[in-house]
Amino acid sequence: MKCAGSIDVRDIDESGINIDPIQVGGRLTADAMKAIIAYGDGYSVCDQCRKPFRLDYIKTPPVDVFHRDLARFVNMDIARVVPGARRGFQAVADAFITPGDPVLITALSHYTEVLAVEGRGGIIREIPKTGQNLITADAAAGKIEEVTREFGRAPALLFLDHFDYQYGNCHDVGGIIRVAHQYDIPVLYNGAYTVGIMEVDGKALGADFVVGSGHKSMAAPAPSGLLATTGEWAGKVFRTTTAKTDVTGRTFGIKEVSMMGCTLMGVTLIGMMASFPHVRSRVKRWERELSNGQKVVDALLSVGGTIVRSEYPRKHTLSRVDTTGSFDRVAQNHKKRGFFFSSALKERGITGVIPGATKVWKFNTYGMTDSQAEYLASAFREIAGENGLPVTG
Amino acid sequence: MKCAGSIDVRDIDESGINIDPIQVGGRLTADAMKAIIAYGDGYSVCDQCRKPFRLDYIKTPPVDVFHRDLARFVNMDIARVVPGARRGFQAVADAFITPGDPVLITALSHYTEVLAVEGRGGIIREIPKTGQNLITADAAAGKIEEVTREFGRAPALLFLDHFDYQYGNCHDVGGIIRVAHQYDIPVLYNGAYTVGIMEVDGKALGADFVVGSGHKSMAAPAPSGLLATTGEWAGKVFRTTTAKTDVTGRTFGIKEVSMMGCTLMGVTLIGMMASFPHVRSRVKRWERELSNGQKVVDALLSVGGTIVRSEYPRKHTLSRVDTTGSFDRVAQNHKKRGFFFSSALKERGITGVIPGATKVWKFNTYGMTDSQAEYLASAFREIAGENGLPVTG
Repeated sequence: MKCAGSIDVRDIDESGINIDPIQVGGRLTADAMKAIIAYGDGYSVCDQCRKPFRLDYIKTPPVDVFHRDLARFVNMDIARVVPGARRGFQAVADAFITPGDPVLITALSHYTEVLAVEGRGGIIREIPKTGQNLITADAAAGKIEEVTREFGRAPALLFLDHFDYQYGNCHDVGGIIRVAHQYDIPVLYNGAYTVGIMEVDGKALGADFVVGSGHKSMAAPAPSGLLATTGEWAGKVFRTTTAKTDVTGRTFGIKEVSMMGCTLMGVTLIGMMASFPHVRSRVKRWERELSNGQKVVDALLSVGGTIVRSEYPRKHTLSRVDTTGSFDRVAQNHKKRGFFFSSALKERGITGVIPGATKVWKFNTYGMTDSQAEYLASAFREIAGENGLPVTG
Repeated sequence: MKCAGSIDVRDIDESGINIDPIQVGGRLTADAMKAIIAYGDGYSVCDQCRKPFRLDYIKTPPVDVFHRDLARFVNMDIARVVPGARRGFQAVADAFITPGDPVLITALSHYTEVLAVEGRGGIIREIPKTGQNLITADAAAGKIEEVTREFGRAPALLFLDHFDYQYGNCHDVGGIIRVAHQYDIPVLYNGAYTVGIMEVDGKALGADFVVGSGHKSMAAPAPSGLLATTGEWAGKVFRTTTAKTDVTGRTFGIKEVSMMGCTLMGVTLIGMMASFPHVRSRVKRWERELSNGQKVVDALLSVGGTIVRSEYPRKHTLSRVDTTGSFDRVAQNHKKRGFFFSSALKERGITGVIPGATKVWKFNTYGMTDSQAEYLASAFREIAGENGLPVTG
């Protein structure tokens, strides 16, 4: 069925259980759905934009209050909405990196952090990971020393993912930030996999910047996200224009240069706003989410030959598993080859695993009900059993 | 009525005639409304993202075809979607401006162009306007000569608005581009007020870059837009990452640095796509749009004391009028003061004029039916008549 022209209706999250690693935290809430229907039109939040003509001053809808709420939500001093976490990285990179500066990321950093550094001509250096795929404060200290010797100065900035996108492992952000601050290196906390699904306290972690993703973890449409910072850095990263034109002598008020003025003028912002009360309360249910995730991981582990590549027990609902020794063995002889697996899942109403993938793959159980998690766990065991794999317990 | 939490339902474009200068080209089509309901969730267009993992390669929904259609639509070689026209300006500024470079804008340029230049440390120089608020090729040539003398080199880039946001006047972009090219200055054509509402032929104009706004003129949600360019410049503005990390040796495929990888992952893109067939056909109806706009302008001119500040006859549906000598005279003695005007319009189901504004203001008749335009024209005459202003004709 088409919803418009050649575009198929999308009902993945309405008609089944989606375990796509990046999609589950960005499913809209019912309130967000209602709000985007009302605010679909282009500049829909701008009806009552008055002096000083900036998004975060709009009172109706309460965009101003939302900005303050966002800052409080991550316990930082000031927040702005941005078109995706990556645009938050870009704004901070812009403020801190000059060409040739060394900039730290980690061995598990997301590619958008790399692009942000590359875009400013920074030189990327990675903090190595341990054999367990963790980033430690010791490794950070060692790398900072190494980079400082190499460049004759400390790195200009450190990008740090609390949970990485590859394993969903938890890294010692508090410890690493303390180390970085000993060298006066500002730290950007990438909360793409945390802000909106678990509680984040930027001040307690010592973060200089907290970046979150609306479409990844805040039940919001894309592209959306937030960039929050401290009073110390706000003036630098959110500097207002000082331009005065030569002929007309125009100036441009309090528009912020790195934000390019206003950022999310319609449906994306209203979606974030409408979901926000739900997001604020759902972060308190993280333990239940974890327990559901653990249940599913354990079901996979009960299939002989399966290895969990993420740290164990799980501290995140995003997990990376290696089924080369289980489901991929089935694929070798199955008439559908590797597609048997996604196909068997699909028959059970489960989507989000790349069709054909049976070796190393990721999934995310975020947002499931307990019974959905149990259903998913049983489904994995069932598919294994039906295909002759040993299932214990 | 609330649609979610503290957010009021927005029904401005459903329940009346909206003449807001920036909103009318960004009203969603019915198809876009349907598509955003289906694709509201965060990463909704990414269900079938496969290698090489880039937005413009996605086949279902047909994002790949849409990218090619967009390029063709503005007659350029290659196009990308961006989170708003301003992010297109930023990407081009990034590729062409180094700190201290002189960069040309015009005396009527939009502030986001200023921010793009300021963000890269460029030095802004304006091409002056004529007494009739027009930017001419002669003025451009003069300014280029002047800047070249001042800096010892030609400007690095020229931002050029086909129709400006202040008057909706038509500037000689073809002539100015020819002049700029004589000095080897690349030109960014800002089509925020053209692409999606009238036909734009980038090659015929000689533009190096064409930027359009989804939420301003392409019936799409915010933030959205396009950046198109020629084969000559594509490699520069859309350069792919060359980063290789030091520890893990990771590389990042064909992600484009200035785009920060993918750009519009959900509702914004699908809205652009769903509206596109309508947009492609509505640009052919521009003459009718102009005639409706002219009708309304003429009605305002029939009110004694009103001046049209935009060029006349009108070449755009966005117009700037000065009613200091008409409606503002009424405001002086009216018990509602300046609010009498927006209030009288509101009683007639007309919105989009800033409440209290009776001196110099803007409106846009784009997208009206003929009878709506006639109704609006009569409304202005009626309000004038009821308040004792002379109305001719």
